[in-house]
Amino acid sequence: MTVSPFDHPYLSGLLGDTETAGRFSAQAEIAAMLAFERALAEAEAVEGVIGAEAARAIVTALGWFEPDMAALATGVARDGVVVPELVRQLRAAVGAPHGASVHFGATSQDVIDSALVLRLKPVLDRLDALLTQLVSVFGELEERCGANALMGRTRMQAAIEITTADRMRAWRAPLERHRARLAVLRPELLVVQFGGAAGTLEKLGDKAEAVRKRLADRLGLGDAPQWHSQRDRLTDFAGLLSLITGSLGKFGQDVALMAQDGSEIALSGGGGSSAMPHKQNPVAAEVLVTLARFNATQISGMHNALVHEQERSGSAWTLEWLLLPQMAVAAVASLVQANALARQIESMGDRS
Amino acid sequence: MTVSPFDHPYLSGLLGDTETAGRFSAQAEIAAMLAFERALAEAEAVEGVIGAEAARAIVTALGWFEPDMAALATGVARDGVVVPELVRQLRAAVGAPHGASVHFGATSQDVIDSALVLRLKPVLDRLDALLTQLVSVFGELEERCGANALMGRTRMQAAIEITTADRMRAWRAPLERHRARLAVLRPELLVVQFGGAAGTLEKLGDKAEAVRKRLADRLGLGDAPQWHSQRDRLTDFAGLLSLITGSLGKFGQDVALMAQDGSEIALSGGGGSSAMPHKQNPVAAEVLVTLARFNATQISGMHNALVHEQERSGSAWTLEWLLLPQMAVAAVASLVQANALARQIESMGDRS
Amino acid sequence: MTVSPFDHPYLSGLLGDTETAGRFSAQAEIAAMLAFERALAEAEAVEGVIGAEAARAIVTALGWFEPDMAALATGVARDGVVVPELVRQLRAAVGAPHGASVHFGATSQDVIDSALVLRLKPVLDRLDALLTQLVSVFGELEERCGANALMGRTRMQAAIEITTADRMRAWRAPLERHRARLAVLRPELLVVQFGGAAGTLEKLGDKAEAVRKRLADRLGLGDAPQWHSQRDRLTDFAGLLSLITGSLGKFGQDVALMAQDGSEIALSGGGGSSAMPHKQNPVAAEVLVTLARFNATQISGMHNALVHEQERSGSAWTLEWLLLPQMAVAAVASLVQANALARQIESMGDRS
Amino acid sequence: MTVSPFDHPYLSGLLGDTETAGRFSAQAEIAAMLAFERALAEAEAVEGVIGAEAARAIVTALGWFEPDMAALATGVARDGVVVPELVRQLRAAVGAPHGASVHFGATSQDVIDSALVLRLKPVLDRLDALLTQLVSVFGELEERCGANALMGRTRMQAAIEITTADRMRAWRAPLERHRARLAVLRPELLVVQFGGAAGTLEKLGDKAEAVRKRLADRLGLGDAPQWHSQRDRLTDFAGLLSLITGSLGKFGQDVALMAQDGSEIALSGGGGSSAMPHKQNPVAAEVLVTLARFNATQISGMHNALVHEQERSGSAWTLEWLLLPQMAVAAVASLVQANALARQIESMGDRS
Repeated sequence: MTVSPFDHPYLSGLLGDTETAGRFSAQAEIAAMLAFERALAEAEAVEGVIGAEAARAIVTALGWFEPDMAALATGVARDGVVVPELVRQLRAAVGAPHGASVHFGATSQDVIDSALVLRLKPVLDRLDALLTQLVSVFGELEERCGANALMGRTRMQAAIEITTADRMRAWRAPLERHRARLAVLRPELLVVQFGGAAGTLEKLGDKAEAVRKRLADRLGLGDAPQWHSQRDRLTDFAGLLSLITGSLGKFGQDVALMAQDGSEIALSGGGGSSAMPHKQNPVAAEVLVTLARFNATQISGMHNALVHEQERSGSAWTLEWLLLPQMAVAAVASLVQANALARQIESMGDRS
Repeated sequence: MTVSPFDHPYLSGLLGDTETAGRFSAQAEIAAMLAFERALAEAEAVEGVIGAEAARAIVTALGWFEPDMAALATGVARDGVVVPELVRQLRAAVGAPHGASVHFGATSQDVIDSALVLRLKPVLDRLDALLTQLVSVFGELEERCGANALMGRTRMQAAIEITTADRMRAWRAPLERHRARLAVLRPELLVVQFGGAAGTLEKLGDKAEAVRKRLADRLGLGDAPQWHSQRDRLTDFAGLLSLITGSLGKFGQDVALMAQDGSEIALSGGGGSSAMPHKQNPVAAEVLVTLARFNATQISGMHNALVHEQERSGSAWTLEWLLLPQMAVAAVASLVQANALARQIESMGDRS
Repeated sequence: MTVSPFDHPYLSGLLGDTETAGRFSAQAEIAAMLAFERALAEAEAVEGVIGAEAARAIVTALGWFEPDMAALATGVARDGVVVPELVRQLRAAVGAPHGASVHFGATSQDVIDSALVLRLKPVLDRLDALLTQLVSVFGELEERCGANALMGRTRMQAAIEITTADRMRAWRAPLERHRARLAVLRPELLVVQFGGAAGTLEKLGDKAEAVRKRLADRLGLGDAPQWHSQRDRLTDFAGLLSLITGSLGKFGQDVALMAQDGSEIALSGGGGSSAMPHKQNPVAAEVLVTLARFNATQISGMHNALVHEQERSGSAWTLEWLLLPQMAVAAVASLVQANALARQIESMGDRS
Repeated sequence: MTVSPFDHPYLSGLLGDTETAGRFSAQAEIAAMLAFERALAEAEAVEGVIGAEAARAIVTALGWFEPDMAALATGVARDGVVVPELVRQLRAAVGAPHGASVHFGATSQDVIDSALVLRLKPVLDRLDALLTQLVSVFGELEERCGANALMGRTRMQAAIEITTADRMRAWRAPLERHRARLAVLRPELLVVQFGGAAGTLEKLGDKAEAVRKRLADRLGLGDAPQWHSQRDRLTDFAGLLSLITGSLGKFGQDVALMAQDGSEIALSGGGGSSAMPHKQNPVAAEVLVTLARFNATQISGMHNALVHEQERSGSAWTLEWLLLPQMAVAAVASLVQANALARQIESMGDRS
């Protein structure tokens, strides 16, 4: 055990995904936050909100700036968020007179939320690629053994004979719907957050919308009015993560049940036991159920975080940090395990 | 307290919605199940699966059939689902020789799930109408007092001055997204379930798809392959119900906070106290938070129910029955209370 | 489906418990609230807080008083709680001059919470009796077939041979711990709530503690300082309810798995299917899993309700009403079903 | 954001606790697992289950053994648990002929669960110490400003005047109950897990109970029959963790509300804003609410994990790993923050 198996030296290979975990590392967050500050300086310079020289000084400093991590930790413990201390350090790095132009008109939530969305972009790509891949693996499997006979089971009792293709359809069809949901959600989710102290961009005057649009463009995100106290997009996305793990949990549960007596499914590989070396445990199948119930647990907190009071709720916002990254890693890990498990299936059903 | 406040003689006026509760009554479910059996008989007759005379006998019997409720209760306690006993009674009502044609090729889940979807249809309509109405009430309110000054608050501390329109945007914009989500979800959710014993419609041979299509048409539902072990549509819908209550919970929380010292918002009405008759409690605002947290609680169970093993999971399916109807009533009740609360707002912010 | 299957004409036989549901009916709550008002008047009269004549007039009126239910419903919709309107009606029933002595020094939460605890008392008794009974049924079963051989299964794979007694120990031992937990929790939970408007019993002066003690005695409850914003006892109790359903869910899951191919367990009875009349579905076993996951879902909301702001949180308190009664019924129903299922077991394991 | 803020370089100072996080590190788990293997070898040697020489060889090897972490990660990905590979490495380290005596009669769950309980012991100590400390800080605060006047608030509205001592009682009293709960739970929770392949210790014959007792003694744990499929103790403990964070969440919410306009409470310190450097945000108070809702979210999964099928559920067991360590860190972190926040309180209420 470690605090989170997703970060764990030996558990993360089972339960995690290195690439996606990397999206939520401190390094990746800092890189995304600095990308925000750079794009902001550039956008504000183009619109004449800050001087061109100031923007150049900021971009130059960002080229070599390395944050003092210990000071960031102290800053978070004091401020509840890393941005004030990061901005202080960055302003010092830029130095007078242009340091004051760093982060102009922005607030912590602009940086944190936009930096999150920036990193969700490749997560969406990875989810989509893994869904596509799994649909295809299931397709091949169905071609290979879809016509085989299988005892259909309802309420855990033998019902009537079906084919393996019949059962596999319930594994594959939801994945196709999840891909469609991802496509609908993508442009909705991948939008910049930029609102300033209380959402009104009051320091930018009539340049506010133009700066926001340029900022979004430079970040490769969609433009949208600030949403810092409207968390429905993130919660909707979390719901999709849990729909994915839930559907794969059904696949895993089915495989674990089929593997019980060894006659309905043949799997290559399978885990060992310290007491019974002969056993072949359907470890990946079980992990799919685990990750499904894990995300089914977390989703509740994301919905509670919708009750985000006034212009910014420290408590509701921080709650998301504790939930969403782990849900994303769980969803990707589940897809990785499901792809591996589907490939482990040597045969299903009865060829007779 | 009662087992469920949604069914309670004096609590349901605060926490429930009579119309929506009615959709989930035993009577409404029976009516929808019988509508399914009627449409099935008619569809099967047109396709020549059962005789035209059998269909007429079934339709005739359905004209006067009244189920024996006590026997239904006994049947559920034995079978875990009401359909076997309902079909037995209906077959007896039709009598020989046509009784055997009742429910031909169908299974319990076809009846229960299709009857559920039939009743969700007016629930979707009511949600959409109430969302539209609330957006419009917010629009009027914004016209009336949107320009008033309001202290923006972040982390529960005074930040900078904003306008009431700025705060109200965070109440209204998510509602518009929820309407869009409802529109995407609607055709996906409102589809017939028809699969027979284990999903293969094995008794209908090459007429299976044609019957299913006719059945869907007669029920006013979309046609789709059976989805009895793919519960993602229902869980996705449950997620939207909880997104709605969550966004309204934010509205309620904001109003409760604004009402604290009476200077930021003026509400007509407001609840009394048994100890302090002078108090004006923002009851509706608090209830919005309650219903948000209630649905945020329930959604977790719906995601757990995605792990629906094999061709039919008695345990996962039954879990939905305990969760989804209450979530739907909570969402509608929340919209009703939010509409009422928005209308109670006499003024907001500082006109100065 | 109905709003809550626990209140449903034909589902409650499967998922509910009539006796426990009755504890949470409007009638039972009103009776308990009136018992509180009576005991309060008597206690206050003994201590000289109200006149003896006033107390007699209140007791007399309570002998014939029937609340106007429609007015209660209107009151709840306005006040968020039934007590202000109930007290108004009761004061009118007592009439001048003694009506004013009704509910003296008390507040809504005193009435509602004490009335809840009064009704939890028989629920605790019923839980304890059903746990005891189930331990005993398991004991008999173990005597009958405990020595039979059974394949031990880990990670859903055959491991090594054990006996049915080995498996049954994992069903019975937690029940004995739950009984011990219930005994620890009982005196902690069954205490009066009496605090007045904001918890200080300010209207009772130096008689406050004496009145509270007498009130508790008359209600057959323990005495304790007011706890209206300290909800840990109720949440702790909810946790125990869910521990019970969780342990029984494991029993149900085990039975459903053993019943898969019919050779490990023989059950009398079992539910039918509308499509396959020959099937014997282990309905009670599945329902145990359902109720376990239902309470595992609800418990989250009870823990969220601990964040009960200031002297009384309308939103957190109301949330409990939506959760706790259903959890209690689920726990009792689960014990009833488990007792029935244990008695259905005709044999287990291999006698050879 | 990182996968888990509890493991994060700059967020863990706000949301985590280094000491408790250390209990759940890979290093700490390995140390505890090796302590188990050592105590087992010693206990088995004393009882003559393995030879004294074998035990000496094992103890000697454990003196210098360093596991190959990369191979452990590969092992977990294959076996779903680290023990088979760890035992393989340890047997190789001991070498022939005594390597075969390593882990004799034990199984993975014996090692993992006992190693967990060993590490929960200091966590219980820390929880108890922090609870005691906080009760004492509250006591001093009450002495200092308990008599000050405070407006009591119900349903977020001014009710009647109380004292700060009245409000503080609702912060302190639950902590005292939590200490009492911890004391009841302690001997129940801190027991060895030792059951062998399927719980029957079949390889130890009539020495089974004696070895288990000695093993428990050497580990400083209580003795108890194996509980590998009875997870109620861990879930009960998780419930207490969430009761603690919930009660502290109420304290945090109260402070955040009192700090709104600065007149009811004076706090030293307080977090800054990147947009409004003058603001003093009650960061610790908000974090207490966050951690309360985090644990309220997780507890649901722990209750779902009670449905632990047969002699060992890979899926339910693994789910605990994803939940319990984070809940423990959240509870300790919440107590640390609450102690700090309580000390930040310079004054409360109105001295008038």
